[in-house]
Amino acid sequence: MRENDPSKEGFTVTPWEVEGEIDYQKLIEDFGTDNVDEELIDRIEEVVGDAHFMLRRGIFYSHRDMDRILDDYEEGKKFALYTGRGPSGHTHVGHLMPWIFARWIQERFDVDMYFQLTDDEKFLFNFDSTLEDTHSYALENAKDIIALGFDPDKTHIFIDTEYIHELYPLALKVGKRLNFSNVKAVFGFDNSTNVGSIFYTAIQSAPCFLPTELEGEEVPVLIPCGIDQDPHFRLTRDIAETIGYIKPALLHNKLAPSLDGTGKMSASQPKTTIFTTDEPEDVEEKINEAFTGGRISASEQREKGGDPDICSVQNYRYYIFESDDGKVDDLAERCREGDILCGECKQILKENIKGFLSEHQERRDRAEDKLEEFLVRDCE
Amino acid sequence: MRENDPSKEGFTVTPWEVEGEIDYQKLIEDFGTDNVDEELIDRIEEVVGDAHFMLRRGIFYSHRDMDRILDDYEEGKKFALYTGRGPSGHTHVGHLMPWIFARWIQERFDVDMYFQLTDDEKFLFNFDSTLEDTHSYALENAKDIIALGFDPDKTHIFIDTEYIHELYPLALKVGKRLNFSNVKAVFGFDNSTNVGSIFYTAIQSAPCFLPTELEGEEVPVLIPCGIDQDPHFRLTRDIAETIGYIKPALLHNKLAPSLDGTGKMSASQPKTTIFTTDEPEDVEEKINEAFTGGRISASEQREKGGDPDICSVQNYRYYIFESDDGKVDDLAERCREGDILCGECKQILKENIKGFLSEHQERRDRAEDKLEEFLVRDCE
Repeated sequence: MRENDPSKEGFTVTPWEVEGEIDYQKLIEDFGTDNVDEELIDRIEEVVGDAHFMLRRGIFYSHRDMDRILDDYEEGKKFALYTGRGPSGHTHVGHLMPWIFARWIQERFDVDMYFQLTDDEKFLFNFDSTLEDTHSYALENAKDIIALGFDPDKTHIFIDTEYIHELYPLALKVGKRLNFSNVKAVFGFDNSTNVGSIFYTAIQSAPCFLPTELEGEEVPVLIPCGIDQDPHFRLTRDIAETIGYIKPALLHNKLAPSLDGTGKMSASQPKTTIFTTDEPEDVEEKINEAFTGGRISASEQREKGGDPDICSVQNYRYYIFESDDGKVDDLAERCREGDILCGECKQILKENIKGFLSEHQERRDRAEDKLEEFLVRDCE
Repeated sequence: MRENDPSKEGFTVTPWEVEGEIDYQKLIEDFGTDNVDEELIDRIEEVVGDAHFMLRRGIFYSHRDMDRILDDYEEGKKFALYTGRGPSGHTHVGHLMPWIFARWIQERFDVDMYFQLTDDEKFLFNFDSTLEDTHSYALENAKDIIALGFDPDKTHIFIDTEYIHELYPLALKVGKRLNFSNVKAVFGFDNSTNVGSIFYTAIQSAPCFLPTELEGEEVPVLIPCGIDQDPHFRLTRDIAETIGYIKPALLHNKLAPSLDGTGKMSASQPKTTIFTTDEPEDVEEKINEAFTGGRISASEQREKGGDPDICSVQNYRYYIFESDDGKVDDLAERCREGDILCGECKQILKENIKGFLSEHQERRDRAEDKLEEFLVRDCE
C-alpha cells in the first residue's frame, strides 16, 4: 500500500504528484512524522534566539528527529543541511519557501548546506525533457539559490550529472537495500515505470550520507523540504543504519498554495504561479486574477466582511511575502471587519512581491558570476 | 516471459545464472540471434586473412549484425570493440576466451577496445560483497586483460565507479526507455529485486554508445561476449535507434565447460575451474581429478577406445589450450582408437596449461606497472 492512499483520502501526495485538497494532519499520521509543536519551537528559539515565521505560523509543521538534531547541536555536534530542487523549469516562489527557511537555519546554526539539483530525475520522470533542458534549468535554479544569500564558504550546490562520481557509490549502497516492492509501495510505481525512475530515489538519498563521507566523521543531516518529498527520506531512514550511517532528520513544510485557491502552486499552471523571473506586469496580472475571500459586491463586503482563511492573496502573504505577524493579522482582521476591500489588499501584496522580485532579480543577475564559487563538481 | 524459459527447456541462461545442460542451438532460437555460418567465417577470413580457431570450431557460434560490421569495415568505417567482466573474484580461464578472441579481433582489424569492469554490478547482485571487494578484484582482473597483449594505445579499461561520470548520462538515456516489465521479462526479476540491480542493465548498455560520444561521430560497436550476456544487449538493441545510436553488433561464445563435465566453468566451483592465479600444483591436482571420456580400465580403453566428445580434458584443449586444429583432432582420434590413455592425455593438457599460465603470470605481474597506462578514469 502506498503510504498516502488517495482512494480513501481524496488527495494524493508523492514527490511527483500532488492532487486534491491536502489534509496535512492526515499526512503526519500516514507518513508517521511528528508535529512541530510549541515545545519544539520554544526550544529552537532558546537555542538560536528566535524562531522563523515559517515555524511560528505552522508552515514548517512536521518533522522527524529535529529534537535529536538539537540535542547533538547543544552537545557541540554540528549537523549539515541538505535540500534540493528538480530542475524542470524556472523557480517559482513556492520553491523558495524551504530555501528561505534553510538560509535562516544556516545563518542561525552556522552550518554547511548541500544543495542537490536533480537534472537526472527531471529527465527520467518527464518523458519529453532532454538532459540538456534539465541541466540548463539546473543552472537557472542555482542562481535563485545563490540570490537568497547562502554563505558561499558553507554552501555546496551540485547538479547530479556533474557530481555523480561522488554520489554513485552512496547511491549503490542505498539501491542495494531497497527493492521494487519498497519503491512500489511508497511511490506507487508499476511495471511500466522506467528503470531509471525506479533507481532514482537512491540518488536522492545519497546526499544524506555525503557530509559524513566528505568530513570523514559522522555528520547528522537535517533536510528542510516539502512534505511531498518525505517518502524518499522515509526509505532512506529505513536503511540508513543498516549501511552504517545516521538517519537524516527532516523539517517538512506545507506546500505553497496556488493563486486560484485550489491545490499547490505549480509550474505547470503558470497563470496562478509567481516565478522568480516574472516581470512587474506579470505580477500585476496574476494578482489581479487571484482568488480571494471577498464578497460579490463592495457594499456587501463592507457590511459582512471577507474571508481571509480561503483567500489566496492572504495565503501568499502568510506563506512567504510578509514576515511581520502583526501586519498579517492586521490585514486579516480588517478583511473580516470589512475595513479593506480586495483591490486594496491585492495592491499591498503586489507591492510586496514586486519589491521582493526586484531585489531578488538583481541578486539573481549577480549570481551568474558566482556560480563557479557555489557549484561543486566531480573532477575539481 | 523470460526469453529462455527454464521450465520448458531444462536449462537457464541469464547474465547471473547458468544452470543445466545448455542447448546452444535452442538459445539462438530463443534469443533470436544468427548462426555464425561458413559464409560468415569465410568472409572474415577474406577480410583479415585468417579465422581464429574459436570461429572455426564453433565456439563463437552466434552473432547479431556481424555482417553489417564487415560491410561498414570494407567501406572504410571502423568499429570499436566492447566487452567486460563482473569482478566477483579472480579471473578463470573461461573468462579469458572472449578476451583472447577480442585481442585477435583488435589486432586483425586494428580497432579500439573498451573494457568495462562492473564493480557496481557485482556489489549489487552479490549480497555479501562490498564495493571495496569488487573494486579490488576489478584491478586484479585488469591485470589479466593487459597480460593478454591488448594494444595500450587502443585499449581503454574502466571500472564503473571510477568512470560513472562518463557513463551516467548514457545510462540515463537507456534507463528512461526500459521499464520494469522489460527487465522482468528478460532477466526474470521480481518484486524482491533491488532497485540498483533493476537499473544496472542501463550501465552495461552505456559503453555501446560511448565510442560515438567520445569520437563525436557514429562508431559501430562489436561486442564479443558469452551468450549469457546477450539479454542485456538485446534490450540495448531494442532502444538504441530511439535514442539516436546505432545498434551494437555481437559475437557470442559458448560458455567454457567445467572440469567435472557438467555445466559451465564457475568461480564458485574452484576445484573444477582453473584460475589465472593457480600454481602448477593446483593445475596438477585439478586436471588429475578432471572428468574424462575414459573407460573403467586401461585394458578396456585400449580395446574399445575413449569418448573425447564428453571429455572435459579434450574440451579444455578444444576451447582454449590448443590452437592447432591438427593436434586437437589427432588426440581425439587417438583417444577413440584406444591409442592414448587418460593419464598421458591429461599430462599433455597439464603441460599446455602450465606453460600458458607461467607465461601469463609473468605478463600479469608486469601488468601491475601498466595499469595506469590502460585504465581510463573520470577526472583525467
